[in-house]
Amino acid sequence: MKRLSAAAESTGLGDYEHYMLKEIYEQPRALAATVPAVGAHDIADDVFGSAAAAIFDQVQAIQIVACGTSYHAGMVARYWLEDLAGIPCAVEVASEFRYRKRVQHPGTLLVTVSQSGETADTLAALRDATDDEFIASLVIANVDHSSLVRESDLVFLTQAGAEIGVASTKAFTTQLVAFLMLTLVLGRRRRLSAQGAAELLAALHELPDCVEQVLLLDEAIEQMASQFILKHHALFLGRGIQYPIALEGALKLKEISYIHAEAYPAGELKHGPLALVDADMPVVAVAPGDELMEKLKSNIEEVRSRGAELYVFADRDAGFVDEPRVHVLQMPMCAEVLKPIVYTVALQLLAYHVAVQKGTDVDKPRNLAKSVTVE
Amino acid sequence: MKRLSAAAESTGLGDYEHYMLKEIYEQPRALAATVPAVGAHDIADDVFGSAAAAIFDQVQAIQIVACGTSYHAGMVARYWLEDLAGIPCAVEVASEFRYRKRVQHPGTLLVTVSQSGETADTLAALRDATDDEFIASLVIANVDHSSLVRESDLVFLTQAGAEIGVASTKAFTTQLVAFLMLTLVLGRRRRLSAQGAAELLAALHELPDCVEQVLLLDEAIEQMASQFILKHHALFLGRGIQYPIALEGALKLKEISYIHAEAYPAGELKHGPLALVDADMPVVAVAPGDELMEKLKSNIEEVRSRGAELYVFADRDAGFVDEPRVHVLQMPMCAEVLKPIVYTVALQLLAYHVAVQKGTDVDKPRNLAKSVTVE
Repeated sequence: MKRLSAAAESTGLGDYEHYMLKEIYEQPRALAATVPAVGAHDIADDVFGSAAAAIFDQVQAIQIVACGTSYHAGMVARYWLEDLAGIPCAVEVASEFRYRKRVQHPGTLLVTVSQSGETADTLAALRDATDDEFIASLVIANVDHSSLVRESDLVFLTQAGAEIGVASTKAFTTQLVAFLMLTLVLGRRRRLSAQGAAELLAALHELPDCVEQVLLLDEAIEQMASQFILKHHALFLGRGIQYPIALEGALKLKEISYIHAEAYPAGELKHGPLALVDADMPVVAVAPGDELMEKLKSNIEEVRSRGAELYVFADRDAGFVDEPRVHVLQMPMCAEVLKPIVYTVALQLLAYHVAVQKGTDVDKPRNLAKSVTVE
Repeated sequence: MKRLSAAAESTGLGDYEHYMLKEIYEQPRALAATVPAVGAHDIADDVFGSAAAAIFDQVQAIQIVACGTSYHAGMVARYWLEDLAGIPCAVEVASEFRYRKRVQHPGTLLVTVSQSGETADTLAALRDATDDEFIASLVIANVDHSSLVRESDLVFLTQAGAEIGVASTKAFTTQLVAFLMLTLVLGRRRRLSAQGAAELLAALHELPDCVEQVLLLDEAIEQMASQFILKHHALFLGRGIQYPIALEGALKLKEISYIHAEAYPAGELKHGPLALVDADMPVVAVAPGDELMEKLKSNIEEVRSRGAELYVFADRDAGFVDEPRVHVLQMPMCAEVLKPIVYTVALQLLAYHVAVQKGTDVDKPRNLAKSVTVE
C-alpha cells in the first residue's frame, strides 16, 4: 500500500488506484489541518467566526440538520453535545425536517452540515428556518464561498481539501472534529471543566497519529474484505455513539460495493433483524469495549447453526481473539472521545477493499452523484 | 378470505390459517374498542387516569421511549404531537436511551410504549429515569397489571386483546389510537382548536370502517405479494409521517418473510441507497399523495434499465394507474390523520402474504420471541 506523497496530495491520484483510497490516507493530514491551533485554556469561540461568542452565550439547545453521511456526523455529535457539553440536541434528515410542522425549544441553534455546502435539502432547510425558531445558524462545510457558508451566521470550515470520491471519507471525519470543537466551546459554558477541555484538545492533537495506526491495519482489513465479496447482505451493529458509526460503515459498503448493508442499534437485534441472519448475512459489530460483545456472542450462538459469521472491530486491550465464526480486528488504543473517528477509518477501508475486490467503480458508484444539489 | 366470527375472536384460530391474519382482521374491532367513548367537547384527560389533568397541565415536551414496532408507533406520534398539538417531541430506542448520558428539557413527560408491558429495555429505561429529568411517566400498553403499567404514573391501556403472532399488528395500530388521544388532550391545551379536536374524534370514530375497506384489498395485495417471493431485498420509502410506516412495513416483511427489507426517508434515496436498486430489489413507496410519487418516478427512470420495479400504495383519488414497472395499489380515502394507520394495514397484509407464499412459519418466525423480556 502506497503512502501519500506531497505531489499526490495536491494534484491527482498519485500512486493511488482510486481517489477514495487517496482520501482515506489523507485523513491524518486533513484532521490535523482541521484541529484549530488553540491552546488548552483558550475557549476558541472565534474559530466559528467573530460573532460566535455572543451567540454561544445564548444557546440552550441544538438542532442539527443534514443528509447522508453528514447526517451521521450529526448523530455522533448528539452524543458528545449531550454527554460532554450537557446541552440537549436533536438531529434530523434535511428532507424530513423541511417538510414537517416542527416545534423548536427556545434558544435553539440550527447547525447544518454539508461537505459541498450546496446540498439541496440542507440549503432549503436553512432558508426555511425562521428567526422565531432559531437564535442563529451555524454551518459545518468543506467548501468556502458555497451557498450554505454564505447564508449562515456562523461557519466552521473543515480543512479536508477537495474530495473527489463520491463516497465521503475525509469530509466525514473532519466534520466530527468540527463537532468536537463545538462541544468544547459550548461545554465550557456548561458542564465541561477546564481540565476536561484541555483533555479534549490534547486528544484532538493525538488524533492524526491514532488514524495513522488504523491505516497500518489496511492489509488485515483487505483480507477480511475477501470474505464479503460473495455476500449479498450485511448487518452492522453498534451501541451508543458507535451506532451512527455502524450506520456510516453500512452506508459506505452500500454505496460502493452494492452489498445490502443495514445498520441497527445492537439492542434492537431481537426486535426483528435477528430473523434475517444466516450464512449470506455477515454481522459486523463496532464494539470497542466488551459490553456489546458479550451480548452479541449470546445472540450469535442462536444463529451459528445457520452459518452466520461475526466480524468484530474491538479495542486491542479488550482482549478478544478469534474463535469459530467470530473474527476480531484488534483496533489501536486511543482516547475514548476519538473512537468514533478511529473506527470509521477501519470501516472505510473495509468498504473500499470489498468494492475493489468486487470490481465496482469505486469512485463513481452507479446512480450516485458527489453532491446532491437537486431534490 | 374468511371474516372474523365472535367465536374465533375469543378462543383460537377460528377459520384463520394463522394468528397473524386473524389479528390483522381483528383490527376494526380492536381499534373501535380502543377509541374511548368520549364526546367531541370532552377533554377526556381521564382516559389516562385520574391524575392525568394535573400532569398534562405542566407538560412542555414529550420524550417517547420504546423498542421495535412500538418505537415506530412513537415515531408516528412525534409528527402528530408537534404538528397538531404543537408540543416538542423526541423519540428514542430504549436500549440507546438507557445507556447514554442524556439531557432533557424542563417539563418533559416520559412516554413508554410496549405491547406486553414487560419489554426489558423499555422497563429498564423507565426505572432509570429520575424525577430531575421528567415530571411524570405515561405508559401505553396492551397488558394490564404488567410491570410498566404498575410502575408508571399514567396508563393508557390499548384494547387490542391478546396478540399471539410474534409480528405485532393490532397492538401497533391501537398504540397509534392511544397517541392520537394524547395528541388530543395535550393539543387542546395548546394549538388544537375545539373544532380541530372534534374533527379528530370524528375521524377516530370512522377509523374501523376505513380499516374494513383496506381489508377488502386483501386479494389484490395477495397477488402483489407473489412478485416478492423470489426477491432477496426490498426498499421501503416514505416521507414525513409515512416514513415510520415504511419502517414498520419493512420490519414486518423482515420478521416473517426473511426478505431483507430496509426503509428510508424518500429524500435520502440519492444519498446512498439508490446504488443498491436493481431487479432483485423492488421499491415499495408509501405515498398517499403525489409529491413523493413524482420524485420517485424520476428516480425510478434512472434504474429502470436494470429492471427495478416500483410498488406504490397511493390514495385512490390521487389518480395513479399502473404503467411499465410501476404498480399502484389504490387505497381507500380517509381522513388525513388516519392514513398512517390505514396504510399500515395494507403493508401488514403484504408481509403476511409474502411469508405464506414463501412457506415460512408466519406466527413464530425464526430467532424471534413475542416479548423481549431479556436484553
